[in-house]
Amino acid sequence: MSNHILENSHGPLKRTPQARYFVDSEYFKTEMQQWFADRWVYVGRADELPNPGDYILRTIAGESILITRGNDSKIRSFFNICTHRGTVLVESENTPTRACQFSCPYHSWTFDCQGHLIGAPGMKDVDGFREQDWGLRPIDCEIWAGFIFLNLKQNPPPLAEFLADLPEKFSNWPIEEMRIGERVEYHVQANWKLIIQNYSECLHCPSVHPALARLSPPTSGENEPANLCYAGGRMSLNEGIASMTTSGSTNRPLISSLSESQKRHVYYYSWLPNLLLSLHPDYVMTHRIEPLTNNQTRIVCEWLFEKSTMASPGFQSEDAVAFWDMTNKQDWHVSELTQRGLSSSAYRPGPYSNREELLYDLDQILLPKED
Amino acid sequence: MSNHILENSHGPLKRTPQARYFVDSEYFKTEMQQWFADRWVYVGRADELPNPGDYILRTIAGESILITRGNDSKIRSFFNICTHRGTVLVESENTPTRACQFSCPYHSWTFDCQGHLIGAPGMKDVDGFREQDWGLRPIDCEIWAGFIFLNLKQNPPPLAEFLADLPEKFSNWPIEEMRIGERVEYHVQANWKLIIQNYSECLHCPSVHPALARLSPPTSGENEPANLCYAGGRMSLNEGIASMTTSGSTNRPLISSLSESQKRHVYYYSWLPNLLLSLHPDYVMTHRIEPLTNNQTRIVCEWLFEKSTMASPGFQSEDAVAFWDMTNKQDWHVSELTQRGLSSSAYRPGPYSNREELLYDLDQILLPKED
Amino acid sequence: MSNHILENSHGPLKRTPQARYFVDSEYFKTEMQQWFADRWVYVGRADELPNPGDYILRTIAGESILITRGNDSKIRSFFNICTHRGTVLVESENTPTRACQFSCPYHSWTFDCQGHLIGAPGMKDVDGFREQDWGLRPIDCEIWAGFIFLNLKQNPPPLAEFLADLPEKFSNWPIEEMRIGERVEYHVQANWKLIIQNYSECLHCPSVHPALARLSPPTSGENEPANLCYAGGRMSLNEGIASMTTSGSTNRPLISSLSESQKRHVYYYSWLPNLLLSLHPDYVMTHRIEPLTNNQTRIVCEWLFEKSTMASPGFQSEDAVAFWDMTNKQDWHVSELTQRGLSSSAYRPGPYSNREELLYDLDQILLPKED
Repeated sequence: MSNHILENSHGPLKRTPQARYFVDSEYFKTEMQQWFADRWVYVGRADELPNPGDYILRTIAGESILITRGNDSKIRSFFNICTHRGTVLVESENTPTRACQFSCPYHSWTFDCQGHLIGAPGMKDVDGFREQDWGLRPIDCEIWAGFIFLNLKQNPPPLAEFLADLPEKFSNWPIEEMRIGERVEYHVQANWKLIIQNYSECLHCPSVHPALARLSPPTSGENEPANLCYAGGRMSLNEGIASMTTSGSTNRPLISSLSESQKRHVYYYSWLPNLLLSLHPDYVMTHRIEPLTNNQTRIVCEWLFEKSTMASPGFQSEDAVAFWDMTNKQDWHVSELTQRGLSSSAYRPGPYSNREELLYDLDQILLPKED
Repeated sequence: MSNHILENSHGPLKRTPQARYFVDSEYFKTEMQQWFADRWVYVGRADELPNPGDYILRTIAGESILITRGNDSKIRSFFNICTHRGTVLVESENTPTRACQFSCPYHSWTFDCQGHLIGAPGMKDVDGFREQDWGLRPIDCEIWAGFIFLNLKQNPPPLAEFLADLPEKFSNWPIEEMRIGERVEYHVQANWKLIIQNYSECLHCPSVHPALARLSPPTSGENEPANLCYAGGRMSLNEGIASMTTSGSTNRPLISSLSESQKRHVYYYSWLPNLLLSLHPDYVMTHRIEPLTNNQTRIVCEWLFEKSTMASPGFQSEDAVAFWDMTNKQDWHVSELTQRGLSSSAYRPGPYSNREELLYDLDQILLPKED
Repeated sequence: MSNHILENSHGPLKRTPQARYFVDSEYFKTEMQQWFADRWVYVGRADELPNPGDYILRTIAGESILITRGNDSKIRSFFNICTHRGTVLVESENTPTRACQFSCPYHSWTFDCQGHLIGAPGMKDVDGFREQDWGLRPIDCEIWAGFIFLNLKQNPPPLAEFLADLPEKFSNWPIEEMRIGERVEYHVQANWKLIIQNYSECLHCPSVHPALARLSPPTSGENEPANLCYAGGRMSLNEGIASMTTSGSTNRPLISSLSESQKRHVYYYSWLPNLLLSLHPDYVMTHRIEPLTNNQTRIVCEWLFEKSTMASPGFQSEDAVAFWDMTNKQDWHVSELTQRGLSSSAYRPGPYSNREELLYDLDQILLPKED
């Protein structure tokens, strides 16, 4: 088929990407290596494993990963397979474990929560075998503001380089001291980059999110230019609106360390590749994005609150959770329709409006240079 | 394994095709391009969208297609994706639309039912953007006898060349004036060409269709030689049988314009690639064939009746529908068993009988020349 | 990722195989050809088809296979497709057939239970067609001790070469005269070789099978060196334990022809590629292994008893069946966890203990030589 639409078009239009970056399963493997196996990725909150011996399981780029808190309180990360025969070591987050020990279900090789092999039945008499050679394979792990990040690469650069100026920018929010109040998981039939694109513009808000548009003006977005580490900006709250909730009001105290301006805006930042960070006057929302295939994505959404707020008698999170759960589902739906449309041979890159500028910037960062 | 069966065989036997044309998913892509993307294909009846603003959705060669009736009453066809970000424009045939307008669920780009872009929020201030450049991508569309045909190719040859002499042959049936009385959809685990093969011989009728054999003699088939456009012929009705129904009788009037001979036969024609047209003395049955994969096919069967017949008080279609629904299912079952057997490494082309001559002819047309 | 674990390791450790032999679907095709299409494989018991005209269906390397007992009482095997159009001839083991005749459901071509074509409607007048050219395609078939084996290869070497000295070794068990008392089928998400590995060591017994360890000492295994045809050995029964059952006792008579030593042991042999043979003092258990994909395996477990035992009034098999059904499921579970772990990029060949010596031997036989 000819490109007659393109041929008829004029002017310096910025255009949407080629479809193959969203529909090609081979390209998906390439970008998983580049953006998930060779980069720092977000995996969870430190408060999910408060005590020595606690652990969580995650999947990154298809790998099952075990994240533990050691007896020294340090958080560490390992590939979740036994070094004996390769068996999955911990089956699920519900698997009971003894204090700081993980025992393989097959031959009972046992590792402590620092990853050392401390028991290997039948190996004592094996010539050349030394327990210290067969610990769990470690993965680099760093923490900022209570967010745990992993890097599957050997000897990765420090996480700080990839946080850029976000810590400074968000220093008024006591994120490290905040705790998860609620979690909702989603399975979306769309490429992970469509989720980031969807998060990065509010041109769709009037048609897709009428309730959101009543709380925050869709045209109020003030974006920063995207960079290699993150993209985002802020939107203002309407007069009389205290936060993004079903009612527009909140019975939670606003975070006291925020400036007056920060109390009148919501801050939306995509930390690349997989953390969407939404800072509200009275809570923080995170989306953790886990690409499964080129057209399937698992998304874990969590709502964080101040410890003191959660401890107060009247605490509830439902007004924030219900509002964003509805909004999330609206976003996943149009993202899925876009994924379906991108697989058409009739798709041609379309024109971006000025209010989709962040998407164009993100395309330059996330996608290969076209010749 | 050796071909010892073939080696032992003698004589000028006409043989069934190589298995790969039915089991190879790469070959399926090739033939989808040749027979569905580069040819006229049948997609539905004009009476499915009687009024301006009405629309239907179809899938051809994996593409979602929107077929509309414009304010000028003309039927048109478009790829069903928004020219902005590629989102699927109309989600399903149940999607409510405003009068002759299709609005994209993502950013509300709006198209009229002639395909023109008539609204694009946020695009007014974009340098170089002109609404007239971004209409829906059109697809060529022609109608014969109320049957709508599409061609995904740019500047295709006229449909008339592919109808050949069928319009003349069927001129005694008032097909254009007939209306859909019933529709049944099937999902068959067999290659689409096995469906056409099955339709093109009645050697299987005694074993597979004992009820059919009581209405119409399995050996009564008179076929024309197949050509590039169609293959078919006719079978006679037994003495005392009025039409193909559960009872063999019908309370519907026979179509008055038919000749006496036409009233005593049923005419079975495969219009290539995807319309099976079965003309009875009192109704017309169509099968629309939609290949999904090399071994999965969606089939939509419809029964058409004269408008006057449908308007009469005692009208019912059940005797025709139940008879062919039973017969269809018998055919799909043996087609599925054949699809399964063709995937065996032990399959070798077998001998056609003289009563499968049309299959051999169709093989020459539908399949590549073997060296 | 670097191989730092391996680099730190010393000594003459025998190691587990590379993961690709278990997770690579291309390698699976290679080994299906080598071990299932070009070798003798076990398919069932002769007592499953006791009378002329009886038949069973099996799937080997994706091929549907028909095994029949002819009017001459001889057991034969054929590809289960009609030589006319390739249709699957017998749909399921529940398909009713006339005495020693198989009639194709499509065009009624009919074959006798020796594979000859004896009826082909509409073919009489076809020039060059001779019924004797179009019999079912035969497969070589041999029987030992009531076990039926097939070989898809043309002109295969005799089965006896692959049985090696097993017939002599097991001559005290009247296997040919024994009959199937119970059958249980399993679908396991693991490579077929992991099933054989699991069967070939009892290092896992203390952690995986506490009940088994109470009947038979996990360290009592005495293995023979593996050879190209089989691998196995025996384990002793604990004092006071009569057989492997839920209670450790049995009300079935011990097989009288066994030696005293044979009555105090259980014999576990893997006949390559797909028969696990477990000989007990009072019954024989078999596992038939049917690889479906690189990570899916169907397993049919059967319990054989002496005819006289089965005919006795108080006969029951539940104590043996329930014990091994529980044990089987424990084994499949750890095999599935190992399959999952082997797909990790972090997997490195681990060290075998001395009690896994048979696995190392089997690796040398089942897997290609690594350079």
